[in-house]
Amino acid sequence: MQKTAEELAKKQREISIAEFFEKNRHLLGFDNPRKSLLTAVKEGVDNALDACEEARILPEINIEIIQLEETRFRLIMEDNGPGIIRKQIPKIFAKLLYGSKFHKLSQTRGQQGIGISAAVLYAQLTTGKPATIMSKTGNKQPAHQFKLKINTQTNEPDIMEDIEIKWDEKDHGTRIEMDLEGAYMKGRQSVDEYLKETAIINPHATIIYTNPEAQQTLFSRVTQELPQEAKEIQPHPYGVELGRLIKMMEMTEARSLQQFLCSEFSRVGPGTAKEICENAKLLPTMKPENITRDMAEALYKGIQATKIMAPPTDCLSPIGHDLIEKSLKKEINAEFYCAVSRPVFVYRGNPFQIEVGIAYGGDQPKDQLVTLLRFANRVPLLYQPGACAFTKSISSTSWKPYGLQQSQGSLPVGPVTFLLHIASVWVPFTSESKEAVTHYPEIIKDIKLALQEAGRKLQSYVNKKGRVQGQLERANLFERYIPEVADALARLTGEDKEKLTQKLQDMIKKEDIQRAIHQMSSLKGDVEAETKLAERAEDED
Amino acid sequence: MQKTAEELAKKQREISIAEFFEKNRHLLGFDNPRKSLLTAVKEGVDNALDACEEARILPEINIEIIQLEETRFRLIMEDNGPGIIRKQIPKIFAKLLYGSKFHKLSQTRGQQGIGISAAVLYAQLTTGKPATIMSKTGNKQPAHQFKLKINTQTNEPDIMEDIEIKWDEKDHGTRIEMDLEGAYMKGRQSVDEYLKETAIINPHATIIYTNPEAQQTLFSRVTQELPQEAKEIQPHPYGVELGRLIKMMEMTEARSLQQFLCSEFSRVGPGTAKEICENAKLLPTMKPENITRDMAEALYKGIQATKIMAPPTDCLSPIGHDLIEKSLKKEINAEFYCAVSRPVFVYRGNPFQIEVGIAYGGDQPKDQLVTLLRFANRVPLLYQPGACAFTKSISSTSWKPYGLQQSQGSLPVGPVTFLLHIASVWVPFTSESKEAVTHYPEIIKDIKLALQEAGRKLQSYVNKKGRVQGQLERANLFERYIPEVADALARLTGEDKEKLTQKLQDMIKKEDIQRAIHQMSSLKGDVEAETKLAERAEDED
Repeated sequence: MQKTAEELAKKQREISIAEFFEKNRHLLGFDNPRKSLLTAVKEGVDNALDACEEARILPEINIEIIQLEETRFRLIMEDNGPGIIRKQIPKIFAKLLYGSKFHKLSQTRGQQGIGISAAVLYAQLTTGKPATIMSKTGNKQPAHQFKLKINTQTNEPDIMEDIEIKWDEKDHGTRIEMDLEGAYMKGRQSVDEYLKETAIINPHATIIYTNPEAQQTLFSRVTQELPQEAKEIQPHPYGVELGRLIKMMEMTEARSLQQFLCSEFSRVGPGTAKEICENAKLLPTMKPENITRDMAEALYKGIQATKIMAPPTDCLSPIGHDLIEKSLKKEINAEFYCAVSRPVFVYRGNPFQIEVGIAYGGDQPKDQLVTLLRFANRVPLLYQPGACAFTKSISSTSWKPYGLQQSQGSLPVGPVTFLLHIASVWVPFTSESKEAVTHYPEIIKDIKLALQEAGRKLQSYVNKKGRVQGQLERANLFERYIPEVADALARLTGEDKEKLTQKLQDMIKKEDIQRAIHQMSSLKGDVEAETKLAERAEDED
Repeated sequence: MQKTAEELAKKQREISIAEFFEKNRHLLGFDNPRKSLLTAVKEGVDNALDACEEARILPEINIEIIQLEETRFRLIMEDNGPGIIRKQIPKIFAKLLYGSKFHKLSQTRGQQGIGISAAVLYAQLTTGKPATIMSKTGNKQPAHQFKLKINTQTNEPDIMEDIEIKWDEKDHGTRIEMDLEGAYMKGRQSVDEYLKETAIINPHATIIYTNPEAQQTLFSRVTQELPQEAKEIQPHPYGVELGRLIKMMEMTEARSLQQFLCSEFSRVGPGTAKEICENAKLLPTMKPENITRDMAEALYKGIQATKIMAPPTDCLSPIGHDLIEKSLKKEINAEFYCAVSRPVFVYRGNPFQIEVGIAYGGDQPKDQLVTLLRFANRVPLLYQPGACAFTKSISSTSWKPYGLQQSQGSLPVGPVTFLLHIASVWVPFTSESKEAVTHYPEIIKDIKLALQEAGRKLQSYVNKKGRVQGQLERANLFERYIPEVADALARLTGEDKEKLTQKLQDMIKKEDIQRAIHQMSSLKGDVEAETKLAERAEDED
């Protein structure tokens, strides 16, 4: 009956990472059919946008979803990116944990080299079909087409087809086609919503989307300028854990501790390096390979005890307040727009940047909770709003001074959409599937500062709107009595009634009000809304 | 400026699974210092219990946590399991995705072969120190001691020490020691709570725990019998996805479709296999290697269209209602205990078994929400109660008929602890770190049936308690007036007052009430509580 260690050992063996994720696909966002369809789209779009930006190409992305059966869909995604060289296509799409962004400290959407191959794995698991990939890297290059599956036992690509193909419409780009199990629904957490928000947060991208009902939506770019390139940075000493520090010393080619510190970290020059060594009671001339674990720990503590300049901020690529406003104007029918792009701040050695936009009024419902559009590194966050630092920051800010109703501790009520964006080389998500930002007090504090700044702009608009409306109402009231007053005055003074009417009309200074309206409109800079407001003013006449 | 596909390709490379989890440790439960300490303990205890049960050994586990610095702890875990043979020790502890349970369909705590090596990885990342493992496989065998780190670049063990060592106290067993960053707190989601609940749900285990405050707690086993062995089963046809079916046909050694179906699935005999083939319009004699994807899909649909017997249930190892009661009695000071072990039910080809226990009254607070102890495959679930099917099942059951207060849709209020256990070869967790059970309607339905059955037992106790208490109160009231009544009767009848008093006392049948109290006590079978109740009755005299 009693089994021995030898018998138990017979069954112990290695598990492939592909088998692991096949069994644990919820870890990668493939929890259920609806979320799986969204995740597959998301992985394709993230990759396309990242590749275009890295290659400095204005992205144009085509997404088409065709319903094949009740729970089966064909997903086609095509971009105008730099393309992928033939040799790399199988690994990029049919090997988990293969990519270019994993070891890089810069602001990118994808990170792990796992997303798109996980979608291929999910498709093959649910429909048994390979993914078809077509890619072209230049005008004079042929396009290559692969049909790929993942061998789950080895986590290596299984190449079912590898051909050259004519693809004349494009100079360069990549096209992915896969059949997968899914469920298509509209509303929050839908592909439609995801792409709309992606368009808002990527004002330089054009996205053409055909949904399973064959409705096509065009999200066209509002700027011809690519976002500032996010530079790759070295880690800042404050953000490195002890185990990582030890590993870095094992791997370094530097010959001295001082050289190691200067060459492998950002913001460490010879002076700072010496100071760190001093604080760690280690000689700067020591060879890194001779550093023991205990010395490494002393070095780690020495780093914390040394004042080091904050990391460079050009690893971030914020959107900017003007583009946020433009984007909001394009996708949300409101009457006032404003945005704030905060200065970079540093937490645990990592630079962060918070941006906030507000769209107020217009078609938005007045008696419901405000709408939140949350983003991290230009990617929409559709799940788990309740767990997110963005939601917490809004609900713990007092909105009454800014002209919105609010119950204690809850989101404000009013015709408002908030856009919230966090950019960083390291976004602290609450979990696996990057759905919500962790409640770090430092991050919440900076989000609240951004919200307050935007809130003041909103307040000045809401106040001004109230004031101008008051003036206009009084002017209209007076205007209505001008004939009677003019009549009475004409009889009293004997002057011409026409002239008197004119003078009275001059007195109510409607021009001033019109000017105020005009200022308000230019404040929001939106011609359409301006016209509307003017019309409204005329209606009230 | 514009980068080409060739330039981008230079950076594309493979990422090791250890690097991936080093960066994404929250996926494995190492989110923050507090949870990390708990997760490390959990992984060690799960492995020890699984190994003991597989080797049919009554587990005795020693856990010691020593605080070294403010945020650094030494964790020592020792078991009397079968031990691990020398050759396997490095891989089991210092290679992610290596184990014996991944491909097995049976009810085990661990599944992935990733837990304990993830703890080693986390320890090395936060303290730079290797883990020390000692293991002995038999009386006449030497013990082996390893100091191990994980090479994160290769996901292979880095052996820092490999020696034979004297370990006379034990015939066989394993001892793990590691230093890691952590935070120790009491209360819910603490190591203390985790071990207490582990002891409750594993009545055959003895756990000795020394916390960082050097307080020792002994959880001794309440049964000398090992749980029924959970048999390994083959997959049931209903539970296999299309992609998996295709892979199984690629890997099978069966020569015909019929043979494949009979040999690789549970509950498929030659007759059923033929029927499946008929429904799929495929010949049973076809060779599996000749099955195309489209044929595989036909086969998949054929399976769904065929009536197949439910899977065997000996892959499950329930605790049983008597042991649940015993366990609750040992750890929770209540006055009434009951438990229900439901019959096995099948969902998506997988057998499930639900068990529920109730501890009522005693020291538990009367005016707070009831306490929930949630378990899956004998492992306590401490996180995310709000997302769990167990919580939903209790709050959507109406508890007023069973004698508990309850607001609509919320947990009931009262001096009650609920124990809830789900056993399955495949527990549908809501996420990565196995914290909550998904809201499948089928599962919730069976949990509610178990709750109602236990609820009826609770109700009969609560009612009886009310009745007996009523009787006792009336008797006490009457008893108080016996002297006056006896006095009056003596004067009226001239009989002896003493005798009359005795007769009157006989009339109120206190013995009957005492008997009822005794019955109630035997109903709960707890001598201590019985004495208390009797004392209470006496106090009321």
